[in-house]
Amino acid sequence: MSEHVYKTVELTGSSAASPEDAVRRAVERAAKTVRNMRWFEVVGTRGHIEDQKIAHWQVTIKVGFTLEGA
Amino acid sequence: MSEHVYKTVELTGSSAASPEDAVRRAVERAAKTVRNMRWFEVVGTRGHIEDQKIAHWQVTIKVGFTLEGA
Amino acid sequence: MSEHVYKTVELTGSSAASPEDAVRRAVERAAKTVRNMRWFEVVGTRGHIEDQKIAHWQVTIKVGFTLEGA
Amino acid sequence: MSEHVYKTVELTGSSAASPEDAVRRAVERAAKTVRNMRWFEVVGTRGHIEDQKIAHWQVTIKVGFTLEGA
Amino acid sequence: MSEHVYKTVELTGSSAASPEDAVRRAVERAAKTVRNMRWFEVVGTRGHIEDQKIAHWQVTIKVGFTLEGA
Amino acid sequence: MSEHVYKTVELTGSSAASPEDAVRRAVERAAKTVRNMRWFEVVGTRGHIEDQKIAHWQVTIKVGFTLEGA
Amino acid sequence: MSEHVYKTVELTGSSAASPEDAVRRAVERAAKTVRNMRWFEVVGTRGHIEDQKIAHWQVTIKVGFTLEGA
Amino acid sequence: MSEHVYKTVELTGSSAASPEDAVRRAVERAAKTVRNMRWFEVVGTRGHIEDQKIAHWQVTIKVGFTLEGA
Amino acid sequence: MSEHVYKTVELTGSSAASPEDAVRRAVERAAKTVRNMRWFEVVGTRGHIEDQKIAHWQVTIKVGFTLEGA
Amino acid sequence: MSEHVYKTVELTGSSAASPEDAVRRAVERAAKTVRNMRWFEVVGTRGHIEDQKIAHWQVTIKVGFTLEGA
Amino acid sequence: MSEHVYKTVELTGSSAASPEDAVRRAVERAAKTVRNMRWFEVVGTRGHIEDQKIAHWQVTIKVGFTLEGA
Amino acid sequence: MSEHVYKTVELTGSSAASPEDAVRRAVERAAKTVRNMRWFEVVGTRGHIEDQKIAHWQVTIKVGFTLEGA
Repeated sequence: MSEHVYKTVELTGSSAASPEDAVRRAVERAAKTVRNMRWFEVVGTRGHIEDQKIAHWQVTIKVGFTLEGA
Repeated sequence: MSEHVYKTVELTGSSAASPEDAVRRAVERAAKTVRNMRWFEVVGTRGHIEDQKIAHWQVTIKVGFTLEGA
Repeated sequence: MSEHVYKTVELTGSSAASPEDAVRRAVERAAKTVRNMRWFEVVGTRGHIEDQKIAHWQVTIKVGFTLEGA
Repeated sequence: MSEHVYKTVELTGSSAASPEDAVRRAVERAAKTVRNMRWFEVVGTRGHIEDQKIAHWQVTIKVGFTLEGA
Repeated sequence: MSEHVYKTVELTGSSAASPEDAVRRAVERAAKTVRNMRWFEVVGTRGHIEDQKIAHWQVTIKVGFTLEGA
Repeated sequence: MSEHVYKTVELTGSSAASPEDAVRRAVERAAKTVRNMRWFEVVGTRGHIEDQKIAHWQVTIKVGFTLEGA
Repeated sequence: MSEHVYKTVELTGSSAASPEDAVRRAVERAAKTVRNMRWFEVVGTRGHIEDQKIAHWQVTIKVGFTLEGA
Repeated sequence: MSEHVYKTVELTGSSAASPEDAVRRAVERAAKTVRNMRWFEVVGTRGHIEDQKIAHWQVTIKVGFTLEGA
Repeated sequence: MSEHVYKTVELTGSSAASPEDAVRRAVERAAKTVRNMRWFEVVGTRGHIEDQKIAHWQVTIKVGFTLEGA
Repeated sequence: MSEHVYKTVELTGSSAASPEDAVRRAVERAAKTVRNMRWFEVVGTRGHIEDQKIAHWQVTIKVGFTLEGA
Repeated sequence: MSEHVYKTVELTGSSAASPEDAVRRAVERAAKTVRNMRWFEVVGTRGHIEDQKIAHWQVTIKVGFTLEGA
Repeated sequence: MSEHVYKTVELTGSSAASPEDAVRRAVERAAKTVRNMRWFEVVGTRGHIEDQKIAHWQVTIKVGFTLEGA
């Protein structure tokens, strides 16, 4: 069980609500095509400003998942 | 339109409420003197502890804005 | 007063609720054994994914506190 | 529109002509299999030397593209 | 020949035996789905501790491979 | 003469032509409001992709200039 | 179970035999005073050279352990 | 009082005497145009060599100051 | 003798006089509770500004010491 | 053939024309004293500004070459 | 004795056997031309893949040695 | 004059007196074998502790010098 191989992909989620919500959206989207997700790591937090206000947050994460048949 | 020049300034907002609120306060304050803000990037999250509890969050951001007449 | 010596320890708090809550839990736990905490700095934000959803956030902070008798 | 999810892939293009051409080749090759590319970021510039001269440039970029159906 | 385009993927291999073995397992697993692998770079070495002993090593590598038809 | 004080500002120039041209545009724009510029350092090279091609380069530089009356 | 608080300490193990052995020695020594160790991360590999040969390896690790009563 | 907004500027002071003196000169020069300075951080120490000796030190600092009316 | 295990702690000393003095104060304070100190490494130099002048320097060091009984 | 030993030296080339030309000049100059150069890596791009225009580019590279008789 | 001056050179050793062996080869080769080597630090671990297997490891080290007559 | 090629070497000076003195010693020693030194950059400050006090400072610098005949 300790000898799995994991792959990491880098995703950026965006949300008008909060950085946490941006991460959740990225994980939800990944769930459609990637199985066995195990962890994430936040590698950058940015955002767009429109009309002098924060319009949305953009959070970049690395998501690790188990490769089957390792 | 793609050939603008942008300037970046570094600001630290603080808030007793949350790191997001600290970013919002920094962007609001910047809006008083800077026009055409376009994006921000979080470059550090710190905080002060008083009486053994989090007293306020301090979030440092870089804010980019379009320079007019480029 | 300006000539204190501070020590920094590195802690990781975890929370199913939010990254802020993970930081708060780390500070609360530290308060049981460390006195005179003064500041913290977030040095990493990670999380575990279970059943394709974020199960909990893990935030690593450095906490600085004044050493007495410096 | 602001709530897309993006994926980033890392590519290295090479060119005997120039580093810009190396980036262009990487983007062109990516266009064969990836849709909706939006931005790139240069993360490293290297090159091979043969017969004591620069034989080709190797530029590594991260390319971000919109994931459909986010 | 010098004008290939390469792609890099990030993998984490694990092994109870040694960090080298963890790398070998990651490369072996990648060989099942990726062709034309050319190089790897170690980007992190971690491990799990169980019963106060090293239970297994986890080594994260970037693996570069030639994209065909560049 | 060796005891000047310099200030650094961070600018991002963009250009459809090349990264060098993006730097030149940033320096030209800065020349309108900053005197005594002395050096620059490239701190990031990015770009936008439209219709699967590089639409423009965005190069971020730090520009140092002498403060008068130091 | 997911809401533990962890502490990290930084140790350097040394060994004439190999870097792996240096890590093992650091973990063994830590086991004398720290309970509930969970993971380690290698943060630096150095060594001493004597008589023009590698005399011993010095590997610095961060070791994370669960704080009880969190 | 905890909810100020701070701005950071980057300055390089130079001095034939010492790196400390270079920092002092940068802070003194900044005092002519910036109010409410609160802290600085050294981000680089360089120097020029003339006639095979250190001619002057150049120390780059970030200076943080409170923005009024935040 | 080459197979010791070392522990590193992170301390910040402060001094109105100079950064060197700040380091000395941190080492002196550490000497009260830590035995067998062997080396230090400067990891950050900051300071506070009061009345537009440097009020004190704050230097953060990592201090390494031999763990007995390794 | 795979068991060579390489040495790396750090050079800065400068050119009024372009950053590529600055790299070429550094490689050409190195060719006068170093044999068997194999690769280079760009580690920094800077430039001097005179009369408010880019006067020349300065590009720092690491150059790797095979040590004979390894 | 404490007031020596040291020089650091950067070498890359390669070995089909293991990363440790790659370091040993680099140190052995350096011993032919450099005297008084004192320490090394691993700054990068890479490798080549041939026929979908690790063909050899390439480890880059910095080697420090005492300059005589300092 | 602007199209010189520079080489950088890495040196560590040590001094019981101060970090500045350690840098001066490194530059003085380099002057015995290197001509046309132009600048230095501090890349690390460490020190040895003996009998619980700072025994000497060790400062690592990169020294740049003009290569003749470029």
